[in-house]
Amino acid sequence: MAASLLPTINSPDDLRPLTLTQLEQLAAEMREALCNVVANRTAHFASNLGVVELCLALHTTFDFRRDRLIWDTGHQIYPHKLITGRFRDFSSIRTKGGLMGYPNPAESEFDLFVTGHAGSSVSTVLGLKSGDDLLPGQDDRAAVAVIGDGAFPSGIVFEALNNAAGLKKKMIVVLNDNKMSICPRVGGVADFLDRLRMNSLYVGLKKEAVKALTKVPLIGDDIERMMKKTKNAVKAGLHGGMFFEELGIRYVGPIDGHNLSLLKQYLEMCKESEEPVLLHIVTQKGHGFGPAEDDPVTFHTPAPFEREGRRVISIKKSSTKAYTNIASEAIHAQMAVNPKVTVMTAAMCQGTNLERVRDDYPARFFDVGICESHAVAFAAGQAKAGLRPIVDIYSTFLQRSFDQIFQEVSLQNLPVTFLLDRGGLTGPDGPTHHGVFDIGYMRMFPNMVVMAPGDAADLTAMLDFALQHDAPTSIRYPKAAAETLDRAFAPVELGRAEVLEWGADGMIVACGTLLGACEKAAAELRNEGLDVGVINARFIKPLDTETILKAVAGCPFVVTVEEGQLMTGFGAAVLEAANEAGLPTVNIHRLGLPDSYVEHGERAELLADLGLDVAGIAAKCRELAAAAVPHDDNSAATKAAVRRRG
Amino acid sequence: MAASLLPTINSPDDLRPLTLTQLEQLAAEMREALCNVVANRTAHFASNLGVVELCLALHTTFDFRRDRLIWDTGHQIYPHKLITGRFRDFSSIRTKGGLMGYPNPAESEFDLFVTGHAGSSVSTVLGLKSGDDLLPGQDDRAAVAVIGDGAFPSGIVFEALNNAAGLKKKMIVVLNDNKMSICPRVGGVADFLDRLRMNSLYVGLKKEAVKALTKVPLIGDDIERMMKKTKNAVKAGLHGGMFFEELGIRYVGPIDGHNLSLLKQYLEMCKESEEPVLLHIVTQKGHGFGPAEDDPVTFHTPAPFEREGRRVISIKKSSTKAYTNIASEAIHAQMAVNPKVTVMTAAMCQGTNLERVRDDYPARFFDVGICESHAVAFAAGQAKAGLRPIVDIYSTFLQRSFDQIFQEVSLQNLPVTFLLDRGGLTGPDGPTHHGVFDIGYMRMFPNMVVMAPGDAADLTAMLDFALQHDAPTSIRYPKAAAETLDRAFAPVELGRAEVLEWGADGMIVACGTLLGACEKAAAELRNEGLDVGVINARFIKPLDTETILKAVAGCPFVVTVEEGQLMTGFGAAVLEAANEAGLPTVNIHRLGLPDSYVEHGERAELLADLGLDVAGIAAKCRELAAAAVPHDDNSAATKAAVRRRG
Repeated sequence: MAASLLPTINSPDDLRPLTLTQLEQLAAEMREALCNVVANRTAHFASNLGVVELCLALHTTFDFRRDRLIWDTGHQIYPHKLITGRFRDFSSIRTKGGLMGYPNPAESEFDLFVTGHAGSSVSTVLGLKSGDDLLPGQDDRAAVAVIGDGAFPSGIVFEALNNAAGLKKKMIVVLNDNKMSICPRVGGVADFLDRLRMNSLYVGLKKEAVKALTKVPLIGDDIERMMKKTKNAVKAGLHGGMFFEELGIRYVGPIDGHNLSLLKQYLEMCKESEEPVLLHIVTQKGHGFGPAEDDPVTFHTPAPFEREGRRVISIKKSSTKAYTNIASEAIHAQMAVNPKVTVMTAAMCQGTNLERVRDDYPARFFDVGICESHAVAFAAGQAKAGLRPIVDIYSTFLQRSFDQIFQEVSLQNLPVTFLLDRGGLTGPDGPTHHGVFDIGYMRMFPNMVVMAPGDAADLTAMLDFALQHDAPTSIRYPKAAAETLDRAFAPVELGRAEVLEWGADGMIVACGTLLGACEKAAAELRNEGLDVGVINARFIKPLDTETILKAVAGCPFVVTVEEGQLMTGFGAAVLEAANEAGLPTVNIHRLGLPDSYVEHGERAELLADLGLDVAGIAAKCRELAAAAVPHDDNSAATKAAVRRRG
Repeated sequence: MAASLLPTINSPDDLRPLTLTQLEQLAAEMREALCNVVANRTAHFASNLGVVELCLALHTTFDFRRDRLIWDTGHQIYPHKLITGRFRDFSSIRTKGGLMGYPNPAESEFDLFVTGHAGSSVSTVLGLKSGDDLLPGQDDRAAVAVIGDGAFPSGIVFEALNNAAGLKKKMIVVLNDNKMSICPRVGGVADFLDRLRMNSLYVGLKKEAVKALTKVPLIGDDIERMMKKTKNAVKAGLHGGMFFEELGIRYVGPIDGHNLSLLKQYLEMCKESEEPVLLHIVTQKGHGFGPAEDDPVTFHTPAPFEREGRRVISIKKSSTKAYTNIASEAIHAQMAVNPKVTVMTAAMCQGTNLERVRDDYPARFFDVGICESHAVAFAAGQAKAGLRPIVDIYSTFLQRSFDQIFQEVSLQNLPVTFLLDRGGLTGPDGPTHHGVFDIGYMRMFPNMVVMAPGDAADLTAMLDFALQHDAPTSIRYPKAAAETLDRAFAPVELGRAEVLEWGADGMIVACGTLLGACEKAAAELRNEGLDVGVINARFIKPLDTETILKAVAGCPFVVTVEEGQLMTGFGAAVLEAANEAGLPTVNIHRLGLPDSYVEHGERAELLADLGLDVAGIAAKCRELAAAAVPHDDNSAATKAAVRRRG
């Protein structure tokens, strides 16, 4: 199908003249555009197919140049981008320098916040609305949050609804219910949404029931008052949104989220409400593309696939194992031998590759939904009971648990093991998903052991170590193909780094899986006649001060390499330790991430830009070797001594 | 009233032989013990008076040597301490070396977690229960969380209830509803709890209503099914806990939380439930002590007071202003001149001294409840709309917003101003309340300007600066009496430190209000003939590298002083900056908090123990001066040059 309408839509203004039939045609063209992108590139897919009609209904009911719209979580932003002037650039999405896969104010006035972490839309929309209401002449601006049922149980949503009800702000929350988180959703909220959908079957019977109730024979004043309550209860019970109504949020729905005309009609109605209102719409994840409808988990962010029309012929399969796979295999192996090991995921069963763990050990597998704060406190409870819980959450999402890592784990000194997947630059997702703060935020807590494996062998051994260690531990690793370095593997011991080789001209201290690049850089340098060694730090805390400070004291230069913010990071920890030991630090050079946000792009591209690839690391070493002048602590004698010890 | 029963209670075992009348006498004795403590010392009071009967009912219904009990937030732990073997030590509570004012596993097997931050009890109890259920022979252990209505809207509670409903664990949540957070509570949850309490008036009518409903004349299969739903709806509506029932949590109550016999009866009933159950009890904050019943806000943590029986004659008033007062006055002044300034508190209106702001600017004052995550995202929304929100939250509680500070504020680069009250050692509250991580967790975020005032004049000027600066800012200050240093005040400029005086023998760089102690130490040293200068850092980020590195490059020693964790802290920032600039750091010495938790005690005592008082700072300088040997960058010429520039 050749797009004929979509290229003519330069802004939502161009939607207004369209008839309902034309809008439906446009919806089909938008779906085709979505299929074209994801056929070429890993991108969010099923969720975007599900909100095409909602997107059109919103933009034809409101004017989001003035009105406020936040797409929660943000990965379902593609249809919105297609009709807000970004159709021509659409094929660049998720590539370096191209469109972001999430809302981005730098791209369009129709994007208000860069979102990516789930659940904050209700808060920000309430903030926008209360802000507009305080400014002269702005209180006519409507405010809409679109939030999925997956994000809905996130605690901040409840906090925001509680506040919205208290403030009685005129705002609309569209609950986009597709029965899914990224994985099938779980918990009490999921169950009541299921019941709500059932209720809609009874819509036709409502009137009769209410009529019948008015005929109940009762007398007396109290009875009358009670009956009024009863009728209200029945009314609420019948329309099903008692949960929201109890909270003080008007509930409307559920309605079919793929019926454009119905959506517009209900949005118009909600627009008139003077109080916070929740519109419950039911959509189908992957709608309009059969394979995605049938398997929305795979098609959440599918790998590039070949298709014929609406049929998928093949999905590109990656043959290389990622660190995520290594971690999940290690978890599976630990659970097989130790009945005390449990594992928590926050709706990321697929992303963390835990399906096999879930299937083989269902009683010890806990998907708590997008509820990272709870996940950690919950794990702490299990640890207190005597279990050995593993919390497997992306580095950036674990930020939601900062306070629970503090109070429930570190302060109590409980043996919870954190696996921080996506520790480092995640690539095409961009800054909301890069996991770049965790080295600092983990090492600042007393009692916490903080590790970063240098390769796949380290990762497996570190999990084993962590589950034997009677205190909190954390292990961070990136979204990257797993490497195993060829070396005599030194066992993982608390606070011990692994020296791959000493170098008399300089040392590289690698924190994490950039170790492979450091090794290659060192090999290159050795070929050039520069004797540069490599240390696999393994422990960020406790730092192996003996080994690392030996390098600091004895080598012309020491380069620390980390995939995280330099500020408060691993190199900073080395500086702190050297300073504590009274050592000079002028020969220490830190490579890592700058004090700014790194945009999206392929991880390898980003690392290269930041000087964190083989070429960058080698170049820095060459530069330092050229500049190195002997100082007091770096005499030829010391240098020789280091060479001997190595 | 002389205690006669209480001294005989060495553990909950001693409660079992007591009759109901004796237990009621014991309750009275426990209240008297509470009054005696708070008459001598600032301590949590009203909340403890409210849970005396609940505490006795719990300990006579369960055996918490095996069963699991978590007191959420923890400041209502006093009655529990009185009957779990700590009566004799009770007068030591909140003093250094004495009992902690919160649960503490180090004190008693009856305390499972150190709590202090609100809302995590449901998660930890669910974790304990699911842990026990997985261990052989442990599944008979009951699990109880006691949570106040103030803590209840905290997002993590919702996350935990969602998960509890999904797991269908046998656990009891006692909702202790005293109609208060520390301040009067707000929001949708507060309203529905009010309605629930109203419902109890109709308890007697329930049966009749249900009987009447079965007589409604309707026919047909669908109608019948619908009527079953209707009746369920009515039932739920009548007993009022629809909100919880929708979530999948059985709701029981509300009942009188001061009726010991009723409490025991209901707890026994809940104990039998095979599913998660919420028991809603209504208590009175301050119960049994008239003045506290009448004014539970003042009597939440009152200053020591004189009393005659149940009458308060006088409350000790502090005549000195705290930094909190300086901040609230500065906020008030800003709001008076700038209609765009708003302020958020998370149920800490009293603690942050914002009552006058609330009363004078109600439309721009937002108490969001104990919902710190929401508070920050909400503020970000307001900032995006064009306002200048101030988020005024204790340093330690703001940890709950770590992820929102990242995504909603720092990543969007929005002008939200954070006031981190209680930044530093809070004193008698202990480690859950010390605000010691914020220097690290704030400075790691790009775009964030991080400040710490040296004195009261700085604080006021910094707020003014922050509200002019078009990016995120934060200001941290301790719970301490405000000082204003006598000096020619340098205006606050972005990234500029204030040099109080240069010293040729050494420099102290103070980060925050320990500046006063640094000044006194320097004066002492100058009297002894040692020329030590002082810099008021003011900015942690951007750091004034020009000024501070001049000291590093030119002085025999530089001592950094901060009231926060050394690891990732201010001194670490100085090391990073010096290293970045290629400067040696061996003459830098960092004073601050170690990598362990600091217990409770008076702030001055704790600071002295840690070498952060005048004596400690002076002693460190003397030691460094004695050890100082000139090195390359610290020649006599440089020293002279520094003296001239000073």
